[in-house]
Amino acid sequence: MRVEVVNTGNELLSGRVLNHHLAFLGRELFALGLRIARQVTVPDGEGLSEVLREAWIRCELLVVTGGLGPTSDDVTRRAAAEAIGVELEFRPELEAEVCRTYESQGLRGTEWAARAQAWVLRGAKLLPNPFGTAWGMIVEKEGKSIVLLPGPPRELQPMWRDHVVPWLKEKLGVRSLFEHRFRTFGLGESRIEDRIGSLLRKFRSVEIGYYEHLGEVELRVVSSDFREWEEAIEVIRERLGDWIFSEDGESLEEVVIHAARSLGKKLAVAESCTGGLLAHRLTNVPGSSLVFTFGWVTYGAVAKVQELGVPQEVLERWGEVSGPTAEAMAYGALERSGADVAVGITGVAGPGASPGGPPAGTAWIGLAWPGQKRSFACFHEVGDRPSFKFLLTQEALDLVRRKLLGLPDKG
Amino acid sequence: MRVEVVNTGNELLSGRVLNHHLAFLGRELFALGLRIARQVTVPDGEGLSEVLREAWIRCELLVVTGGLGPTSDDVTRRAAAEAIGVELEFRPELEAEVCRTYESQGLRGTEWAARAQAWVLRGAKLLPNPFGTAWGMIVEKEGKSIVLLPGPPRELQPMWRDHVVPWLKEKLGVRSLFEHRFRTFGLGESRIEDRIGSLLRKFRSVEIGYYEHLGEVELRVVSSDFREWEEAIEVIRERLGDWIFSEDGESLEEVVIHAARSLGKKLAVAESCTGGLLAHRLTNVPGSSLVFTFGWVTYGAVAKVQELGVPQEVLERWGEVSGPTAEAMAYGALERSGADVAVGITGVAGPGASPGGPPAGTAWIGLAWPGQKRSFACFHEVGDRPSFKFLLTQEALDLVRRKLLGLPDKG
Repeated sequence: MRVEVVNTGNELLSGRVLNHHLAFLGRELFALGLRIARQVTVPDGEGLSEVLREAWIRCELLVVTGGLGPTSDDVTRRAAAEAIGVELEFRPELEAEVCRTYESQGLRGTEWAARAQAWVLRGAKLLPNPFGTAWGMIVEKEGKSIVLLPGPPRELQPMWRDHVVPWLKEKLGVRSLFEHRFRTFGLGESRIEDRIGSLLRKFRSVEIGYYEHLGEVELRVVSSDFREWEEAIEVIRERLGDWIFSEDGESLEEVVIHAARSLGKKLAVAESCTGGLLAHRLTNVPGSSLVFTFGWVTYGAVAKVQELGVPQEVLERWGEVSGPTAEAMAYGALERSGADVAVGITGVAGPGASPGGPPAGTAWIGLAWPGQKRSFACFHEVGDRPSFKFLLTQEALDLVRRKLLGLPDKG
Repeated sequence: MRVEVVNTGNELLSGRVLNHHLAFLGRELFALGLRIARQVTVPDGEGLSEVLREAWIRCELLVVTGGLGPTSDDVTRRAAAEAIGVELEFRPELEAEVCRTYESQGLRGTEWAARAQAWVLRGAKLLPNPFGTAWGMIVEKEGKSIVLLPGPPRELQPMWRDHVVPWLKEKLGVRSLFEHRFRTFGLGESRIEDRIGSLLRKFRSVEIGYYEHLGEVELRVVSSDFREWEEAIEVIRERLGDWIFSEDGESLEEVVIHAARSLGKKLAVAESCTGGLLAHRLTNVPGSSLVFTFGWVTYGAVAKVQELGVPQEVLERWGEVSGPTAEAMAYGALERSGADVAVGITGVAGPGASPGGPPAGTAWIGLAWPGQKRSFACFHEVGDRPSFKFLLTQEALDLVRRKLLGLPDKG
């Protein structure tokens, strides 16, 4: 099935916002075994009808985002009607419903706006919108389908998942399309492919989507054949083992917080070069306050000594960026907080490095738990500071995950 | 001048990456007084030639990204040649240059790859690429122009700025197109428009681009008329005053770090609900270690008492989320660090709130400096935790900026 996407909105073309819709739809369609063959962005109102007409000729499924609201430049309805050759019809009962929605959501809607929303494409299947007043629409004609979706992501995404996906699955006859998601840390995409690529080749129905993010590779396993899908998942699980940190979509910080919670363990962190990012990531997880209450940003030697009790002689002998310092930071955090596992991170984010010290990109992560401590050396090519910091927090979280779950450390 | 953009790349259509190129080009073209009339994304290699041919008919400037490298699916060169009707020619001297580049950048390039890169569109102006081996190209034909740019952002962006912009300015006769950028905190887009909209209407040549980010509104002022541009800037400066935090593109954390550095002041932070994000943002600024060395994440009452010396009776009488607690946190951070200005932040990020306590979304920011302390109440509708945290750090940074620069607090 040839799929095309048309996004409307001046804000996409002026660089005000990134086209998140395209990325969202790309992933969602992949999970249904579909690919986007072409995507077009057009300004509000201009030339939309022509673009839709051209796309309608080429494709079998046309997804259009934006321009369904009641304001003057929201012309998607009209353009779509023209492009596919159906009429717009006025549905008085919809006008009344929009008025009720305005009331129940406490919005000030004008009569005029409610009237505008009541015009729909003849024969359209209307998609309810619990987060706004613009219905989505699906029109099927001559073996082709057009899907109209509202522009705001918080309206578009639930509408897509709750209404378009079930309709599309039925249409495709893929009620039994299966998807599984792995998130991994520690192996690059090519090393993952080396490990699993040849083994998966025999599963003809299985498609693997690789999504490489900073410090993570995500795999999506999609198939319409349950047996092959299950076997492929088993192969991946076996070959990637504990490089996989989640199979339910959880981020590394969520995995760590949830593991600590269920084990009744407390965490503490002492950060130098990551400057608070590790604490920030942990505290992004709802419920983190139950397991993480103490963090330090000791962005200099004095702070390390005074707040964490890092011995002066460790700093002098080994330097601020060293295994012993990272361990002493972790140990200090452990002692002061009474936590069960503590992390210390120290490194050179750059751009510059101290004369005689380790080069920018060097870092050490220390781990302490009652009666023990260890440290791990890391090196990352320094691009920008935030990326360097993120990669280190990713490593630190993975070390904590391994510690909590009793997994071996990875080299 | 009608401008269209064609982006190539499977990764854009599968949702692996967001189309940052479009946002970049949208902003850059706006600064030259141009708008993108249409943008198309196509997969690597498929149907590209047809898309380019259609776009070439419609527009006067066609910008194409991606597909210039030597790998097999990089077919942009050939598709562009076909679409605009010029020949590809082999330039032996370029082959030699690519080999030299491979060597100097320490890349392993194959002979075959070097050969592929030496094919260029006849008559093309070649754009040097200091960050890769694929030249960019500009071809002008019959009053139209096509610009081919490499896909990696770190290659595309400098090439655009260093080579395409000067060429385009000359072409447009806008050697004198002026741009100025304001970044503001504390007023929404509509309140800014209320303040300046009617006053700017008389400057017919001036265009204002509004970019609303989380906790910030950015304004870009563009004109080809130097006089009007200068006057418009003056009007904006006068009407928005110290809501403007930078005019040179600096972020709020950069403004704060640079102000502290130039004043020789040290900063410290004590964070509860922002959980390290404020420290993270400060330490994203190169050179921050000279002014910021002490931070605490005290994500619970015990940590606040033990690490910051917040008096138990303050917590009991006023509660953890209160002005006195925020002030005591700031004061504790000030005392322990010896800083000149310290911040304390405490609030309820939600989703839940303590029974009997303030509702989710409530927060207090305390500010302390030698001999004094103050606190400020904030409330933000809690969407997601990271956004709530970001808005609070934005408020805290603005308070520190105002303190350092001797500006009045804003209500």
